[in-house]
Amino acid sequence: MLDHGGDLAAAMARFGGAAEDWIDLSTGINRAPWPVPPLPERVWRDLPGVEAETRCADAAREAWGVAPEAAILPVAGAQAAIRLAPRLRAPGRAAILSPTYNEHAAAFRAEGWRVSEPKAADALAGADAAVVVNPNNPDGRRCAPEALLALADRVGLLVVDESFADVDPGLSLCAAAGRPGLLVLRSFGKFHGLAGARLGFAVGAAEEIGALRALAGPWAVSGPALALGAEALADRGWAEATRARLRDDAARLDALASGAGWRTVGGTALFRLYETEDAAAAQARLAAARIWSRRFPWSAGWLRLGPPGGAGEWARLSAALAG
Amino acid sequence: MLDHGGDLAAAMARFGGAAEDWIDLSTGINRAPWPVPPLPERVWRDLPGVEAETRCADAAREAWGVAPEAAILPVAGAQAAIRLAPRLRAPGRAAILSPTYNEHAAAFRAEGWRVSEPKAADALAGADAAVVVNPNNPDGRRCAPEALLALADRVGLLVVDESFADVDPGLSLCAAAGRPGLLVLRSFGKFHGLAGARLGFAVGAAEEIGALRALAGPWAVSGPALALGAEALADRGWAEATRARLRDDAARLDALASGAGWRTVGGTALFRLYETEDAAAAQARLAAARIWSRRFPWSAGWLRLGPPGGAGEWARLSAALAG
Repeated sequence: MLDHGGDLAAAMARFGGAAEDWIDLSTGINRAPWPVPPLPERVWRDLPGVEAETRCADAAREAWGVAPEAAILPVAGAQAAIRLAPRLRAPGRAAILSPTYNEHAAAFRAEGWRVSEPKAADALAGADAAVVVNPNNPDGRRCAPEALLALADRVGLLVVDESFADVDPGLSLCAAAGRPGLLVLRSFGKFHGLAGARLGFAVGAAEEIGALRALAGPWAVSGPALALGAEALADRGWAEATRARLRDDAARLDALASGAGWRTVGGTALFRLYETEDAAAAQARLAAARIWSRRFPWSAGWLRLGPPGGAGEWARLSAALAG
Repeated sequence: MLDHGGDLAAAMARFGGAAEDWIDLSTGINRAPWPVPPLPERVWRDLPGVEAETRCADAAREAWGVAPEAAILPVAGAQAAIRLAPRLRAPGRAAILSPTYNEHAAAFRAEGWRVSEPKAADALAGADAAVVVNPNNPDGRRCAPEALLALADRVGLLVVDESFADVDPGLSLCAAAGRPGLLVLRSFGKFHGLAGARLGFAVGAAEEIGALRALAGPWAVSGPALALGAEALADRGWAEATRARLRDDAARLDALASGAGWRTVGGTALFRLYETEDAAAAQARLAAARIWSRRFPWSAGWLRLGPPGGAGEWARLSAALAG
């Protein structure tokens, strides 16, 4: 099993407490979700048909300014698209801009690809498939859209994972999607705070999206996820307000971290990455206050935290960091 | 695209009307669903963790009497397991007991298997992988559990699709699962009438279920589906009453069909298969009353119908068949 944020069971096993005692800041998932309305019975009852899928994809197109020539496939979370992307080409040499989260490398390896993990975008050129997470998790590294479009010409398949681009819309390649060899992945649950719904999107050329659709099989996304995705993505007021709120929250979190002696490495408005003296000790200190954070097996100092979701959570985090 | 029941968009394109005008009897999905309760916000918000998955799998184990030595993996509908099953073995020769619904053959072919579709169970022996849908869709053909266990010894991998076994619990191999080479697939949405939720289960040997888990990747099932699956599968009173009700409904549907001059070919309590003079004409006659049924491209006479879901639906069907 790969290590992930969000594994509260591991936190409880190590530090005790019940799930409801904990504030999980270990993920990049917005803690103040879009409010789920009551859903009509039919979305649970019926197999999700073409209409439900199209409505959801159309809302995504509108929300992200996806190019008219690009096709959009709703999938059961960006993770589902990450798993399928390597199957768009015969296995070869995949280069994944690193460090980043480990699911891309795992997915390519599982499909028989050789995987390299260069630290510079230039080193991706010439690969049969390349992956860039933009903005990146965990360090927030950003690649300019123009640079990525140029890179797309120099690799077999370019996968751009925009799971965190809702808080940085200027970075998105959605408006330039539709050309063969460029696949853009989007998450719904992270920015909307509804990761349990399992909804994401693959955006790309019609032929490649068609191939992904065939690989995913019918009814790959639940009816409730398609219905609430369509509604939530059309709620532009909520998105604007949430972007502004998360920006403020990120600054506030950085200030708290700075007070604790941590240095900000980077991040997005959905998560912040800090260099601490000793990440294990810092995590344990927060865990004593039942606040869960994210460490990285390959770094002794890095700790990742998402902004708390409300006044009570902020107060607990402040106290834990001051204590 | 394979042909399926449940594609109301096709019905509307051909015969008109809006979705809410139609009664969709083209699927094997119970029209009187288990009532979905309000779900806590956290099931939408949080990544579904080990605990949510375990709770759901435990409820399935209890409901179906799954052997203690068998492992259970919740998946996003039986369909998701159908797609993954061929990846448990290197591609070879797959034999699928036929006729049956076309997803199994498509899944094996997509993974590079040679597929044969024999009409007799004896012809499956010796295959690298064999598939039996039990009870079968669309004709309701039943295989005795003992015969299937004997067959498991004579093939590389035996996939037993029990998507419709909730109405025929005596047929299930769940109590005999756990041996390598035997994979039992279960649906949640069909019997519980909640196909939109996308929940199903793979039941088998720990190692093979572990391999499926790795192939499915993390968070393959939504939090809401896991939560309501756990609750619904524990509701044994509802299940008993629903089994009895569906049995009565199937008999009532057969009587109506007989009155229309159709002969019952077979089926389960979730769907009935009829031999009509002319399935195209019979489907059009029902469609004029906005009742959607299922035809099969390879049969001129067969028409499949599920029981209506309430008094109003029964009245409309009676009138359409009498008219």
